[in-house]
Amino acid sequence: MRMSEFFLPTLKEDPSEAQIVSHRFMLRAGMIRQSSAGIYSWLPMGLRVLKKIEGIVRQEQDRAGCQELLMPTIQSADIWRESGRYDDYGKEMLRITDRHDREMLYGPTNEELITEIFRESVRSYKDLPKLLYHIQWKFRDEVRPRFGVMRGREFLMKDSYSFDLDFAGAKQTYNKMFVSYLRTFSRMGLKAIPMAADSGPIGGDMSHEFLILADTGESEVFCHRDILSFDVPGDDVDYRIDQQPVVDKWTSLYAATDEKHNAAREEELGEELVAARGIEVGHIFYFGTKYSKAMNAVVASPDGQEIPVEMGSYGVGVSRLVAGIIEASHDDDGIIWPEPVAPFGAGIINLRAGDALCDTTCEDLYSKLSSAGLDPLYDDRDERAGVKFANMDLIGLPWQVVVGPRGLENGMVEIKSRATGDKQEMTPDAVLNKLMAV
Amino acid sequence: MRMSEFFLPTLKEDPSEAQIVSHRFMLRAGMIRQSSAGIYSWLPMGLRVLKKIEGIVRQEQDRAGCQELLMPTIQSADIWRESGRYDDYGKEMLRITDRHDREMLYGPTNEELITEIFRESVRSYKDLPKLLYHIQWKFRDEVRPRFGVMRGREFLMKDSYSFDLDFAGAKQTYNKMFVSYLRTFSRMGLKAIPMAADSGPIGGDMSHEFLILADTGESEVFCHRDILSFDVPGDDVDYRIDQQPVVDKWTSLYAATDEKHNAAREEELGEELVAARGIEVGHIFYFGTKYSKAMNAVVASPDGQEIPVEMGSYGVGVSRLVAGIIEASHDDDGIIWPEPVAPFGAGIINLRAGDALCDTTCEDLYSKLSSAGLDPLYDDRDERAGVKFANMDLIGLPWQVVVGPRGLENGMVEIKSRATGDKQEMTPDAVLNKLMAV
Repeated sequence: MRMSEFFLPTLKEDPSEAQIVSHRFMLRAGMIRQSSAGIYSWLPMGLRVLKKIEGIVRQEQDRAGCQELLMPTIQSADIWRESGRYDDYGKEMLRITDRHDREMLYGPTNEELITEIFRESVRSYKDLPKLLYHIQWKFRDEVRPRFGVMRGREFLMKDSYSFDLDFAGAKQTYNKMFVSYLRTFSRMGLKAIPMAADSGPIGGDMSHEFLILADTGESEVFCHRDILSFDVPGDDVDYRIDQQPVVDKWTSLYAATDEKHNAAREEELGEELVAARGIEVGHIFYFGTKYSKAMNAVVASPDGQEIPVEMGSYGVGVSRLVAGIIEASHDDDGIIWPEPVAPFGAGIINLRAGDALCDTTCEDLYSKLSSAGLDPLYDDRDERAGVKFANMDLIGLPWQVVVGPRGLENGMVEIKSRATGDKQEMTPDAVLNKLMAV
Repeated sequence: MRMSEFFLPTLKEDPSEAQIVSHRFMLRAGMIRQSSAGIYSWLPMGLRVLKKIEGIVRQEQDRAGCQELLMPTIQSADIWRESGRYDDYGKEMLRITDRHDREMLYGPTNEELITEIFRESVRSYKDLPKLLYHIQWKFRDEVRPRFGVMRGREFLMKDSYSFDLDFAGAKQTYNKMFVSYLRTFSRMGLKAIPMAADSGPIGGDMSHEFLILADTGESEVFCHRDILSFDVPGDDVDYRIDQQPVVDKWTSLYAATDEKHNAAREEELGEELVAARGIEVGHIFYFGTKYSKAMNAVVASPDGQEIPVEMGSYGVGVSRLVAGIIEASHDDDGIIWPEPVAPFGAGIINLRAGDALCDTTCEDLYSKLSSAGLDPLYDDRDERAGVKFANMDLIGLPWQVVVGPRGLENGMVEIKSRATGDKQEMTPDAVLNKLMAV
């Protein structure tokens, strides 16, 4: 993409409404624009990141044997009355009356609707287990939406739902999703720590939140230092095998959000305790037959009896992750995208647009990086070098290739790593080789 | 995907609520389930087709230089008051009041919101032209939703918006989108005919609907026979060049929806006139400064004056196309998917699951077709052959590979084209070669 053509309305000044760093940088880097309180449009730069994240989430869901479907945003109030949650949910639920005075709502989550789909479709234990997910916009009418897409009202979430015949099956499914979440966040360049969460009367110990650490995180978290260096299962993970040993390892050491923190452990753990700030980006949750009983989602068991299915739900905050990653990875100058979620693979800065050699060198790099699938962003604008450097740092692409007349006298351009700030002079061909090897 | 694991709740009987063939087959083939009147969940089989269509639409938008963003579903009523459409829109607009009693709505279209984004971001003619699109769920509260996703209330639409400095630029953009639409529908295996549409007081002749022909289409259309064999520009189309000659050619012969049909032309055209049924799948529309004037979206012109931008909008009914393609391509037994939008590339039918040779042959085909990226659906269920044949015809994959003990005695399997019904016996290796060459 050429920056002269790209729809990238960056801001020079810090917007006054942004209280946290991700919100500030997302507005300044032209990623989002607010359309109403807590409701945002994703401009091309922001949408690119959102889709990268969504893509990784999808791949890891599919790898774990989850099947994608897509439920609508607008639901009928009737199924929420069946589950008993229509009145419980309070004012965070956006309630809607249609032209025929039917009570509808904008789905804040989908347990009811997926349970309805399941009960209409599956009748026998032979069709179990089933693991279904969708990636869809949700709405929660927060009383005070703030922090940009971190706590917006309309937000993109991946939610999965599992259906098993018995507790043993449900536990195995839970373990699979636990590992799948470790992998999902790790692939985005994040260290996410699973922490025991409230599970209500049913869940037992099968409820975990996944938090990423960031100095600017929303809440305080505590964990044993060693968890930070635990390995995440690789691409060769075999989900046909119960992942209990991985879950056991990751839950063997202390890790707790401030709500669940036991201050008595502090002295005991001493130097081994890390106290940090965290951002919740995922939640996995076993809830047994809560919805299947209330909504009569039953299957015929092997001995012919009708029994309610065992269920769990598993959420990832897809739009929230965009902000979460920025909170975890930035400096004073702007965003530092981890490569797997970067909106473009590399930036090319032409220090003297209009100079024949600069132009042809840039065009050649642009064309070759594009052909190699590295998706470069080429700053071909007629702007001062300082503006270009500042913009490129702000938007945070992993690599910057700087092409100027002085370097070209010796046939050299400069490549800079956004994360480390390291700069190297090399030939354009060496740049191509280096970036293609990344 | 193995059918034994796939979430595919097919129906044996025709559902009574389905009045048209696409609705009937989409329900029977386990593609969708209604959740409320005119609101559907897309099950995995349906979602696969929806995404294939969305992917083609996106590629052709990108090719034409359109940049993707994503606007939210919920909008503020304020911008609709600015444009004057809040009161005009009537009961089809789903109006919502949030917890703070602010008037909101579920967007039925996005002219207002994109104009607001544009006016906040673009100030100079130097940043024109701009062509922006998004693919997002919309809501129109139809008084009588029917025909499944053909006329649903919550539906997926691609809508693009163009911003040009003057009429000449706007016309060139219009031509580009005209050609881009020809290509988009053609790539889905459809013949879509552009027909002059109502444009209101501004549009002049720059408003076209794109209709596909299907015996079961919703309305009557008329066109000159020769249009049906006009060529569509290929992958080498160069949008930097004005596409006026292509537009001139496609609009040189008579083509009209029933609303615009001039009965006097019937006699004149005689045998050359085709009267058929059509389904509207796209609409392109130039509307000049209607919104930019009302909402003050102005740019500085080269001579320093502030002038309102020239705009157009361009829609494709993405979810509607799923039904439209079925209406255009089916037989009594089920759907006949054009290859580019088929949910799976091929089906494998194991006629005797449990038979060692049948099983290993099927597994081998399944594994090799998967590796080759052909995305096969393997019917590995313990079901009667008749059920498997009927299911495979219903879901309409382009190719069926039938593996049975009798054929395997001679080392042969059967391959059937869903579209032609042609069957051929060949070795499994020959099947692989044939399908990889498709």
